[in-house]
Amino acid sequence: MTQAQNFGFGTQIRKSPYFEATVRWGAKGFSVYNHMYIPRDFGDPEQNFWNLINDAILCDVAVERQVDITGPDAARFMQTLTPRDLSKLAVGQCKYVLITNADGGILNDPILLRLEENRYWLSLADSDILLWAQGVAVHSGLDVTIREPDVSPLQLQGPKSGEVMRALFGDGIMDLKYYWLRRVELDGIPLVVSRTGWSSELGYELYLQDSSRGDELWERIMAAGKPHGLKPGHTSSIRRIEGGMLSYHADADITTNPYELGLDRLVNLDGGVDFIGKAALQRIKAAGVSRKQVGLVIEGAPLGGPNTTFWPIHRDGAVIGKVTSAIHSPRLKQNIALAMVAVDHAAIGTRVRVATGQGMFDAAVADRPFYDPKKTLAAA
Amino acid sequence: MTQAQNFGFGTQIRKSPYFEATVRWGAKGFSVYNHMYIPRDFGDPEQNFWNLINDAILCDVAVERQVDITGPDAARFMQTLTPRDLSKLAVGQCKYVLITNADGGILNDPILLRLEENRYWLSLADSDILLWAQGVAVHSGLDVTIREPDVSPLQLQGPKSGEVMRALFGDGIMDLKYYWLRRVELDGIPLVVSRTGWSSELGYELYLQDSSRGDELWERIMAAGKPHGLKPGHTSSIRRIEGGMLSYHADADITTNPYELGLDRLVNLDGGVDFIGKAALQRIKAAGVSRKQVGLVIEGAPLGGPNTTFWPIHRDGAVIGKVTSAIHSPRLKQNIALAMVAVDHAAIGTRVRVATGQGMFDAAVADRPFYDPKKTLAAA
Repeated sequence: MTQAQNFGFGTQIRKSPYFEATVRWGAKGFSVYNHMYIPRDFGDPEQNFWNLINDAILCDVAVERQVDITGPDAARFMQTLTPRDLSKLAVGQCKYVLITNADGGILNDPILLRLEENRYWLSLADSDILLWAQGVAVHSGLDVTIREPDVSPLQLQGPKSGEVMRALFGDGIMDLKYYWLRRVELDGIPLVVSRTGWSSELGYELYLQDSSRGDELWERIMAAGKPHGLKPGHTSSIRRIEGGMLSYHADADITTNPYELGLDRLVNLDGGVDFIGKAALQRIKAAGVSRKQVGLVIEGAPLGGPNTTFWPIHRDGAVIGKVTSAIHSPRLKQNIALAMVAVDHAAIGTRVRVATGQGMFDAAVADRPFYDPKKTLAAA
Repeated sequence: MTQAQNFGFGTQIRKSPYFEATVRWGAKGFSVYNHMYIPRDFGDPEQNFWNLINDAILCDVAVERQVDITGPDAARFMQTLTPRDLSKLAVGQCKYVLITNADGGILNDPILLRLEENRYWLSLADSDILLWAQGVAVHSGLDVTIREPDVSPLQLQGPKSGEVMRALFGDGIMDLKYYWLRRVELDGIPLVVSRTGWSSELGYELYLQDSSRGDELWERIMAAGKPHGLKPGHTSSIRRIEGGMLSYHADADITTNPYELGLDRLVNLDGGVDFIGKAALQRIKAAGVSRKQVGLVIEGAPLGGPNTTFWPIHRDGAVIGKVTSAIHSPRLKQNIALAMVAVDHAAIGTRVRVATGQGMFDAAVADRPFYDPKKTLAAA
């Protein structure tokens, strides 16, 4: 359900440095993320998906606010914030990490960037980790400074994004490896670029470090991308669900732990790594989880749009879980979903029924990701 | 500027337990606050204002999430979170407080409720104080539990709200004093009620403690209020700016300190009270602030709606501040605003010019609140 609503752009919610550019380039609808507007509709979400997987799209993701952590104890402090072992994270490297609280609950799932020996950025999903990190620091006894810098990311995603990057930055950028970053300039605009994204496609993020030059940067990239079919766009729910990527608050929240999501690889309980939530996660791992995230293929007619509520999942007359994100994939010609179910019902192939609000639909537990370009590449 | 936009209701942003009821009762537009939808338009914001000041309105403010702080050290911990002296806060009493970080910056301006000797609720403005408080607790050495309870407030505001409360809860509720709370039940629905709000009018907040009964509670109140002219509504920007009340992120943020807002009464630097930010606020007080919040009367034709950007304020050719919230008051027949200006330009009567986007408007610094019912009553 997408409803036409009057949406007042007040000052209580921030505008991105790309706001006027996205409106000029056809943004039709916005959502709010980290107290900021994000364009989420350029008129046709399915066309946006095809633009993403066939060519390239430029997305305003300035809502991915950065938490800048610096100081002599920055590395030690940063490790206390995440269960992932950071001892091998090099300067110039990025990692996908979870931020957990003392109960092992997930507070955010950002990209961590190590810009300098003692400078980290957390590129956030939708929660105020600035406040969490500042709060943890208060009584930590560690010498760190934590602030939100003037940084506004764009995502340039899709198979042609590499060519657009080459047009912007020259051949030298082509050796930027997956999950590595580099400081660059474009017409004197200070940027960090990383080979990361939220699309499971080849893609880059460009972190503008001067919000007064957002409009100029947007136009510069769109001009360079024109010969390569670059379109203005937005993060694609279709593609990210195909890729099994999480949307924080929908697929995970403070009550979710990493083991329920099958993200064991992001938790290091061994060795000297100490972090907030370690004791709780040790207990949870030992006891085993009671629910698990699964993929779900929902049968029947194509869903008209994403689910707007958490749909109850039924099996043998009992509710055994909920659909957290569902959408129709026009490429797979299937309704695909992420769901959280009781562990006894998590085996691939388990038959269930989903109360979609448009009636009960049959469904089956399926493997994630639903679409994996690496498998496709390997098969090719 | 209010734009018609497609607004997708996804699961990434939460719905209130009153969501369906507000749509049924005519909600036309929503905003997002604390990761949750809030109705902000029932078709005519000016009519909503008249409904509020002449009769009564019922507003879904479930976005005011609660932080529940309990445990043997709850009182001690709570005092570390705010510069306001809590030593005289009785069980059953509420206070308007600021939450400050180590730099003295404002993180939130909630209502604090003391429900039990060792149970506090922070009824939040728009930021994740749940994460801040949990973060502070990590290394605090204090024995506290911090969580978000199943609590969803409504605001019942306006001169007739007392009569509606009497109809719901009987004569006994009439002795509930300003900024006090009480636990009550309504048809078995567990509630806390307090004489608080965000309207500068007589008003109450009703904190539903069972989200499955939101629809029932809404209908029960609307039915009881019908003879008293109760209307569905939303928090009124007109009334809150008349009253000089803050909207967090618009009029204050993490870079704002209490002295800039003239909220010295909420900071206690004396005696044994110790809190996060005390040293910074001592320094700021000693040095004096460089900018100050003021009221502003903007001349010329009535503004078409609230400001959607921070309007620069000019004096003698220099930018000396910004308008943070502006609106036309149909009662005062004036354009009124809250603004942050350099201290040298904060004197009442100072003439300035405001770049509204619809051109430069003359304006003058004015006293806040713009409208004070107590003064009106005293004059009557």
